[in-house]
Amino acid sequence: MQGASILDYDPATCAIGAAVAILGERPTFLVLREAFNGVRRFGDMQRRTGIPRQVLSDRLARLVREDLLRKVPYQDAGQRRRYEYRLTAKGLDLYPVLVALMQWGDQYAVGAAGPPVLLRHRDCGEPVRLQLACGAGHVLGSAREVTPEPGPGARKIA
Amino acid sequence: MQGASILDYDPATCAIGAAVAILGERPTFLVLREAFNGVRRFGDMQRRTGIPRQVLSDRLARLVREDLLRKVPYQDAGQRRRYEYRLTAKGLDLYPVLVALMQWGDQYAVGAAGPPVLLRHRDCGEPVRLQLACGAGHVLGSAREVTPEPGPGARKIA
Repeated sequence: MQGASILDYDPATCAIGAAVAILGERPTFLVLREAFNGVRRFGDMQRRTGIPRQVLSDRLARLVREDLLRKVPYQDAGQRRRYEYRLTAKGLDLYPVLVALMQWGDQYAVGAAGPPVLLRHRDCGEPVRLQLACGAGHVLGSAREVTPEPGPGARKIA
Repeated sequence: MQGASILDYDPATCAIGAAVAILGERPTFLVLREAFNGVRRFGDMQRRTGIPRQVLSDRLARLVREDLLRKVPYQDAGQRRRYEYRLTAKGLDLYPVLVALMQWGDQYAVGAAGPPVLLRHRDCGEPVRLQLACGAGHVLGSAREVTPEPGPGARKIA
């Protein structure tokens, strides 16, 4: 072990823990997935995710409370006023999390038919991938090329 | 809506759903975080995550069953033989998911003190970030520059 090992610092401050505490569980990810697919209405979300109505309602309320989605009123002819759900900037910034899950799922968790969804760069049509890169412009091949170290918000374990 | 809208395809095949079904909930992410930090032993995991022993034991067993961790025997002097847990290749490939969660958490979910952990490129010391890039080498700024389309494993909704 060297000088500033990450293991000497309190994991309770961890940003991953904090992020997952907000994102929670499976239904949340499915709702976010549909939001990124452009689905905005309760009924469409319900149909596409298969999440029970009450659970979906709870999750949407939580995502609004956490400022990941915002409610925008709409009214179809002859219907009562309803709300649709749109991603906020904070929600849109979750995109790399979903892409990372998707890439891993494509590799390890989908069937032999291959990836169900392809992501393309809107401007040039080329496939899009997440990559790890450093400030000097090096693209990294794996976790082994990364060293974690305590940041300004780290708390030393007593 | 254009020709091959992603919304015409069955979300049940989605790689994000499949990935999250394996990864499950909060304790799983915390265990994986510690594994990437180099923590291998049950007692250390328990202390650092605060996950109750039985829950931790269940999660570790599940991660082994899913081939994200493997059990390797060790024996300290005068102690009985025990097992430690190491990331498999499939587990190591989850690294972008954790980095994506961490980056988002750093931005939105940690305190004013700032990021508790910094990631640096082992070779050059520069900070490491995830970025979206396309096959033509363009680095993308946001989800809005990405178009999802049905892949080979997509199933059209009946």
